[in-house]
Amino acid sequence: MATGDVNPELLRERAAATFNIRELTHLLDGGNEKTERRKELEKLFHEDPEFKTDVPQCYLTYSEAYADALQKCLKIYQKAMVLSDPREILTVADSILHDSTPVHVHFVMFVPALMGHANEEQQAKWLSDALTMKIVGSYAQTELGHGTFIRGLETRATYDPEREEFVLHTPNLSSIKWWPGSLGKTANHAIVLAQLYTKGKCYGIHPFMVQIRSMEDHTPLPGITVGEIGPKMGMRAADNGFLKLDNVRIPRENMLMKNAQVTKEGDYVKPASDKLNYGTMVFVRVLLLDMFAFNIARACTIAVRYSAVRRQSEITPGQGECQILDYQAQQYKLLPLVGLCHALRGMFANLMELYKQANQDLEMGNLQALPELHAISSGLKAFCSEMAAKGIETCRLACGGHGFLLISGLPRLYATTVAACTYEGENTVMYLQAARHVHRAHKKVRGLVASGLTQEVAWNQSQVDLIIASRATIQYYLGLNYFSWVEQASISEPLREVLLRLCHLYMLHGIYEQPGLFLVAGLREEHLEAMSAVITELLGKLRPDAVSLVDAFDHHDMVLCSALGSYDGRVYERMYQSALQAPLNKTQVHESYHRFLGPLMKSSL
Amino acid sequence: MATGDVNPELLRERAAATFNIRELTHLLDGGNEKTERRKELEKLFHEDPEFKTDVPQCYLTYSEAYADALQKCLKIYQKAMVLSDPREILTVADSILHDSTPVHVHFVMFVPALMGHANEEQQAKWLSDALTMKIVGSYAQTELGHGTFIRGLETRATYDPEREEFVLHTPNLSSIKWWPGSLGKTANHAIVLAQLYTKGKCYGIHPFMVQIRSMEDHTPLPGITVGEIGPKMGMRAADNGFLKLDNVRIPRENMLMKNAQVTKEGDYVKPASDKLNYGTMVFVRVLLLDMFAFNIARACTIAVRYSAVRRQSEITPGQGECQILDYQAQQYKLLPLVGLCHALRGMFANLMELYKQANQDLEMGNLQALPELHAISSGLKAFCSEMAAKGIETCRLACGGHGFLLISGLPRLYATTVAACTYEGENTVMYLQAARHVHRAHKKVRGLVASGLTQEVAWNQSQVDLIIASRATIQYYLGLNYFSWVEQASISEPLREVLLRLCHLYMLHGIYEQPGLFLVAGLREEHLEAMSAVITELLGKLRPDAVSLVDAFDHHDMVLCSALGSYDGRVYERMYQSALQAPLNKTQVHESYHRFLGPLMKSSL
Repeated sequence: MATGDVNPELLRERAAATFNIRELTHLLDGGNEKTERRKELEKLFHEDPEFKTDVPQCYLTYSEAYADALQKCLKIYQKAMVLSDPREILTVADSILHDSTPVHVHFVMFVPALMGHANEEQQAKWLSDALTMKIVGSYAQTELGHGTFIRGLETRATYDPEREEFVLHTPNLSSIKWWPGSLGKTANHAIVLAQLYTKGKCYGIHPFMVQIRSMEDHTPLPGITVGEIGPKMGMRAADNGFLKLDNVRIPRENMLMKNAQVTKEGDYVKPASDKLNYGTMVFVRVLLLDMFAFNIARACTIAVRYSAVRRQSEITPGQGECQILDYQAQQYKLLPLVGLCHALRGMFANLMELYKQANQDLEMGNLQALPELHAISSGLKAFCSEMAAKGIETCRLACGGHGFLLISGLPRLYATTVAACTYEGENTVMYLQAARHVHRAHKKVRGLVASGLTQEVAWNQSQVDLIIASRATIQYYLGLNYFSWVEQASISEPLREVLLRLCHLYMLHGIYEQPGLFLVAGLREEHLEAMSAVITELLGKLRPDAVSLVDAFDHHDMVLCSALGSYDGRVYERMYQSALQAPLNKTQVHESYHRFLGPLMKSSL
Repeated sequence: MATGDVNPELLRERAAATFNIRELTHLLDGGNEKTERRKELEKLFHEDPEFKTDVPQCYLTYSEAYADALQKCLKIYQKAMVLSDPREILTVADSILHDSTPVHVHFVMFVPALMGHANEEQQAKWLSDALTMKIVGSYAQTELGHGTFIRGLETRATYDPEREEFVLHTPNLSSIKWWPGSLGKTANHAIVLAQLYTKGKCYGIHPFMVQIRSMEDHTPLPGITVGEIGPKMGMRAADNGFLKLDNVRIPRENMLMKNAQVTKEGDYVKPASDKLNYGTMVFVRVLLLDMFAFNIARACTIAVRYSAVRRQSEITPGQGECQILDYQAQQYKLLPLVGLCHALRGMFANLMELYKQANQDLEMGNLQALPELHAISSGLKAFCSEMAAKGIETCRLACGGHGFLLISGLPRLYATTVAACTYEGENTVMYLQAARHVHRAHKKVRGLVASGLTQEVAWNQSQVDLIIASRATIQYYLGLNYFSWVEQASISEPLREVLLRLCHLYMLHGIYEQPGLFLVAGLREEHLEAMSAVITELLGKLRPDAVSLVDAFDHHDMVLCSALGSYDGRVYERMYQSALQAPLNKTQVHESYHRFLGPLMKSSL
């Protein structure tokens, strides 16, 4: 983009940077080569005209949006066969489609589940078809009546030894599979999680491969009722569906038998270990951290650039209107969130290492690290999804009314992120899983037990404090990791200085917003006064670097997909051009005028 | 509805109430007669088949949603001509249309502005046409580049004494009118706020009546470019628009001249007082409190009923799954929000009195009360919109994944409410307006001034603390008012006991969530421990009344418009029935299958 086209406010901001933006980009990407690779992918995908949309995606109807996403994601996955890292494909797809895709679950859950739960024979049968998308699959676990509590699922798979088949059945309304992505209109197969019954006994939840739609014409097979669950706050193209099974029969060999098995005679063979299942859950949660970092970074980029372009009101009367980024209240909203992006990046890098280590241990037969990693990742998933969602909403509100427009890109980022507060383990449940080692809350539990309550009831009556304690612990853990990430980075001094400032601001902000958590550590009113002065100073020092800090995330305009946040800062031009394309502006006079308003006006003449 | 149809969980909950639900309904409505009147209106409107929609409104396209809302709101306003209180019409329209309406601004701002700013002659000319909707108007103030800072508006009205006309002009991109409701496709007139220039001098912002569309065929008049600004997070039918004026000429008499005037010769005549404008702003903010109370009450109703119906996980293993309302964490999320509804009801009643009093004073020529009322209403608008929006989002998240579906009704309530955080005065600006009397933050300002900064720069560098202080003050003010509202109500003892419990819980929750605000008052760790015990006790005591407390809001199912929250509690039936009607389920196989997925599958065979 020619420099001449860039908003002069942004040019001035960029010239004021005290550090090398490129250096920070490399650090955030995880190295020079990763940045190069990202740029390559951007050339390959973002600059391919096939992936452009004529009008903003948010203007499409549900049906148009589904078709658009289906077409594009199939092209992406075809083109992406050359890629090795599934995270790359996800990132590319997300940054082109923005509202999830109809084959997301196919690649993120169906294929990995096949790898994790199907034995060699089964993988030979299904895997290559799945990878070439002859088979498109969903992962059908959650039911209308059951989410986080997996043991409560009601769908049944009853073994019939005479015909050597399983009978899959959803016995009532609340057992209908509900939410699985890719299921609504796209998948022709599903891995269905069901209570396994054989010889009159229930062995708990196991995975079964069920073909749900015809390979000829895509119509549902007999006994199967399937469809989409309807519009949501976001993720329009995720194709979330429902599935009702009416005594559907599948061959015995369709139970995924890498771990547990059922013999021809109907005998149940136990898996070697329960803990194996932790692996996938942990991996998904680690990937979520990456997504939170990506989304909050995009929201910060949009809000900070907009705040540099937008002028409103005066600090000193008669001195002219200020960039809203000059207001302390605005800096206090946005700069700690840029810090949160860094904290999440650092945490993600660290967890990925821990995960790889745990996996190596696992292959050596050592399962000890997984449960702890599972607890950490539970707490982090809850805390980071909560902070990222709140942070994105703060960015959106910091853009004033314009952030309410879909073309700002912020409502979609919020919806996508806040969805993670309730999926992959509802956050309250996650906090409680992580709440195992904290002083006061546990004291309360013990006190209640001493007063005669059972351990379980006492635990329930202490949930509020356990969650607060859990949150405080994770905040501390995240901050500590952030600090050592900055300390240990191989970077120049000017950059380290900026990053340390941001890190300090992030931590002080965390305490200043929730001082209650630190009362137990002796925090007093006078400490807050002192902190207020330091925060004021840090905000002032970081102000000149604000735009450069978000530039360093180096998001392609297509990745941001925001009229407010583009690199060139031409906010009002983009908003106006987008408005001209709005669905209701297809005609000058809306057809309903002739039906309703016109006749009324004339009758009252 | 026959009792037999109601979910047995809810029957059991209702039977457990410790107070008379009807008595609380009367209190919340403001008396027996008001309840009767509400019921009458529900019969008149909600049970009229003309206002039913075949499919959930959230399934409609933008164009369908606009047409549906236009048709229905015109019918409502025709039918409502019999009503006297404009709040009644608003409530009825809101509870039928849910996503605002294309004539909302016409009735809420255009007509009141005519009454407030047009002189008698002008009212005679336009008012009756406006009331019968021959004239449909918008109120065009906000611009692409200017919102809260009204003095910065750039649209000009330049007086031409030769032709005795004003020339209305938007000189650049950022001066295009942006956001006005009713403007996008519906209005044929607009009251345009513009900088008045006469004899080469600027006299600031004044209102002008501009016809924008033909009365014959609704096409835009020469010099006018007008349209809709595009899809938003919510309020789909608000018909927000943009307006570009290219030297549009209007007669001198189209300046609204009740207050300031321009003579034929172009001489400017000053208004009697500036403070007159406060009146409308205060009134709108008082009405907003009512809307917040209404929305948070609806969200609580949905979430509490759903939490009584939903069973998930076990407190004591083997004892069966619990209603999620039995979890302390869930009670702690929801019950204080029911308290917030009561706090807002009490505050609204009180402010309405203050407003009436101030208006009477005004008519006596006494303007003193208005500025203070203006400051209070600014702070309350910011605090209550923030609390209500957060509270609704808490309710939504408390419903787990199902709250993410539009048919839960919760995303829409959130969007409608959070919009008020940035409109009618952006919240940060509102907090700062209210921040005038608080100890520590002012000490900081004085300290910074003493160190050599100007008052204005010192104020900017203290914004963070001023906002925190402002928030704490308003929280205290709201709580105090809540308490006296309960104390002074003429109610039975059993009801008062429940309401006091709820009020205590609300206040303790406020402190427990933000203890930092109370450090200055000497709060210490041991106080929090004691509070934790009291909160636990209150939650336990209020639990049996939870469903009855929300039943007492007495929301008609059509007003709730939620598959999760209906009176009968048949959550899963309603969700499933709604899904069957989802836009993507109109066909069994989506047309895009034949274009994209089918060919790909076959090519990979």
